Amino acid sequence: MSNTCTLGVDIGATKVAAGLVDASGEILYHTRVPMVGHEDAAAGFRAVESAIRAVFAEHPEETAAGRLAGIGVCSPGPLDPRSGIVLNPPNLPCWRNYPLAAELHRAFRLPVHLDNDANAAALAEAIWGEAKGFRYVFYATLGTGIGTGIVFDRQIYHGRTGSAAEGGHITIDFRGPQCGCGKRGCIEALASGPAIAQRARQRLAEPRPSRSKMAELAGGDPAHLTAEMVGEAFRKGDALASEVLLETAELLAVWLGNVIDLLEPEVVVFGGGVAALMSAFLGHMRAQLPRWSINPRAQEIPLLVGRYGADAGIAGAAALCLSA
Amino acid sequence: MSNTCTLGVDIGATKVAAGLVDASGEILYHTRVPMVGHEDAAAGFRAVESAIRAVFAEHPEETAAGRLAGIGVCSPGPLDPRSGIVLNPPNLPCWRNYPLAAELHRAFRLPVHLDNDANAAALAEAIWGEAKGFRYVFYATLGTGIGTGIVFDRQIYHGRTGSAAEGGHITIDFRGPQCGCGKRGCIEALASGPAIAQRARQRLAEPRPSRSKMAELAGGDPAHLTAEMVGEAFRKGDALASEVLLETAELLAVWLGNVIDLLEPEVVVFGGGVAALMSAFLGHMRAQLPRWSINPRAQEIPLLVGRYGADAGIAGAAALCLSA
Repeated sequence: MSNTCTLGVDIGATKVAAGLVDASGEILYHTRVPMVGHEDAAAGFRAVESAIRAVFAEHPEETAAGRLAGIGVCSPGPLDPRSGIVLNPPNLPCWRNYPLAAELHRAFRLPVHLDNDANAAALAEAIWGEAKGFRYVFYATLGTGIGTGIVFDRQIYHGRTGSAAEGGHITIDFRGPQCGCGKRGCIEALASGPAIAQRARQRLAEPRPSRSKMAELAGGDPAHLTAEMVGEAFRKGDALASEVLLETAELLAVWLGNVIDLLEPEVVVFGGGVAALMSAFLGHMRAQLPRWSINPRAQEIPLLVGRYGADAGIAGAAALCLSA
Repeated sequence: MSNTCTLGVDIGATKVAAGLVDASGEILYHTRVPMVGHEDAAAGFRAVESAIRAVFAEHPEETAAGRLAGIGVCSPGPLDPRSGIVLNPPNLPCWRNYPLAAELHRAFRLPVHLDNDANAAALAEAIWGEAKGFRYVFYATLGTGIGTGIVFDRQIYHGRTGSAAEGGHITIDFRGPQCGCGKRGCIEALASGPAIAQRARQRLAEPRPSRSKMAELAGGDPAHLTAEMVGEAFRKGDALASEVLLETAELLAVWLGNVIDLLEPEVVVFGGGVAALMSAFLGHMRAQLPRWSINPRAQEIPLLVGRYGADAGIAGAAALCLSA
C-alpha cells in the first residue's frame, strides 16, 4: 500500500480545492473550482464532485479502482467528524445537516473522511510534516482566525462530540476585547490577523515622536491597515510594527503556556498566514515561556512552522484517510 | 482477579496515609503515620514502609502473596511517573531524585506505581467513582491549590515528560494577581481557598451598608478569614459571602470554558475542600458556560462532586495499579 495515494478536498466559502497526495505527503496535483455555497445543497455537492472528478481525469492511473485509499474532506464547521455530517456552517448556507461523507461515498464508492481544517492540518503535520514522529502534537493555524488541532498517536483528538481542540478560543484575559465567538479575551481576539491590525491601529493613534511606516502602507488611513502591512513595515525596520509583533508574541506565549501546562505536547506546529508573519518571533515566544508555563522544561518543546503553508487544507484532508 | 485488592499510599508533607482498596473501589481499611520529610531519604522511606506494613498486618489475607495487585503511591510533585522517581518536592526535602517506586518494589516485591495526587484522584474517579464509564475525564481538586488530572480511556494523560494536566495554572487574566507559581491570573490565584479568602477580605474592606457575618467569624480581624468561614457565612445567609462565592463560580466558569473548548471532556469531577464549598454553585457555574465556552453543547457535560472526598489520595494511589 506504500504507493497508494489519497485524495484531499478543501472546501471553503468561495472555492473547492482538491488534490492528489502520495504516501509521503507530496501533493502531486491540485486544482480548484468555485464553491456555490449560497445555492441549494445539490449545487454545493456538484461543485465538490467536479473538483474531485478533475483530479481523477488528470491522474487516471493513481485514481484507478483499488489504487486510491480514500477521499478526505475538510469543510467549514460546525460539522460532525464521526458521522460525516456538515451541521450548519455560517459560510456555507447551502448545507444544513448535510451528510456530505455519505453522499461522496455514494458517488465515488470510496472511504470518505470529514473533519474541520485545523484538525486535518494538524494530522497532516503529524503524519507527513514537521510533527512526524511526535506522539503528542499541538497545531495552530494563525490567520483571520486561530484554529487548533490536537493529534495523539497519529489520531485527531475529538473529545465528547467532535468539538474539542478549539484552542483559539482559550481566554487569557476575561475582561479583554470581545471575540467574534462571544467570549472575551480569546487569543483569537488578541493575536489573529485582524487583532494584530487592530492593536497596530491603536498604537498608531497614540502620539509618537516619529512616523511609522505602517501609516504610509495603509495609505494614510489606519482603517486600511492589515496584519500583512504590519509585517511589511517590520521587515522595513519600523520600530512600532516591531513593538506590535513583540506584543503579539508575548500574548501567544501566555496562551501557549496554558496549552503546555494542560497538554504538555511534544511539539507545537504553526500554520496560516500570521504564522509566516510571526516566524521571526518564535524565539521571542519561546523566551517568554518560563514566565507563562509552570513546566520547567517548556522551552525544550520545539515551536515550528508547518510543512504545508497554503496547502494545509488539501494535505490535511488527504491525511484524514490515513488515520484510524 | 476480580476480588484482588490494591494498596494505596498517599504521601503528604506531614503524614503518610495507606489503605487497602477492593476491586470495586471500596476502602476496606486505612491508617496513617507521621511523615518525616525533613530527615534523610532512608527515614522518609521507613515512614512509608511502616504505613504499608501496618496495612499488611491488619489484613494478612487480602495482602497475602499473589493476592495484592500492587502498590500505588501518590506523592507531592514534581515527580516522574514513568520512572517512579521523586524529583525535588519543596515539601519533602528528604527526597531528591529518589527512586521511590524502585525502593518500594525492592522491599515488597510487588508492582509499584507512582503519580501526583490530582492525576491519581482523577483515575480513581474514572475507574470507580463519579466518572466511571466516561472516556474523557477532567478532574479538578479545589483546595489550598488547584490540581487537575486528565484521564482518557482509563489512562492518565501525562504528556511529554509527565508534567501535563497542570490545569490549575491556566491563566485567565494575564494582568491578574500573581500566583505562587510565578504566572499571573492562574485560576489557582483566583479561586483556590486562599484566593477566595483574599477576595472576601477585599470585599470586607469596601464600605458597605450592612455588616457581614464573615467579619464576626474571623473574630473581627479579616486577616484570620478563611474560605471555610466564607462558606459558613454563606450557609448562614450572608449576602457578601454569597457574592464572593458567585464570583468564584464565574471565575471557575471562565476557566472551565477554556478546558471544555480545548478538551471537550465527557464529564468534569471536582474534589477537594473548596469543591464541597462550591457544590451549591455548580448550577451557577454551568449557567455561565455559554458565555465562556464556544461549545454549543457545553452545558450537557456533567459537573459532579467526586466520590472520594478526603480519601481521594488513597483511592487514587490504589487506582494507579489498575491502569496501563
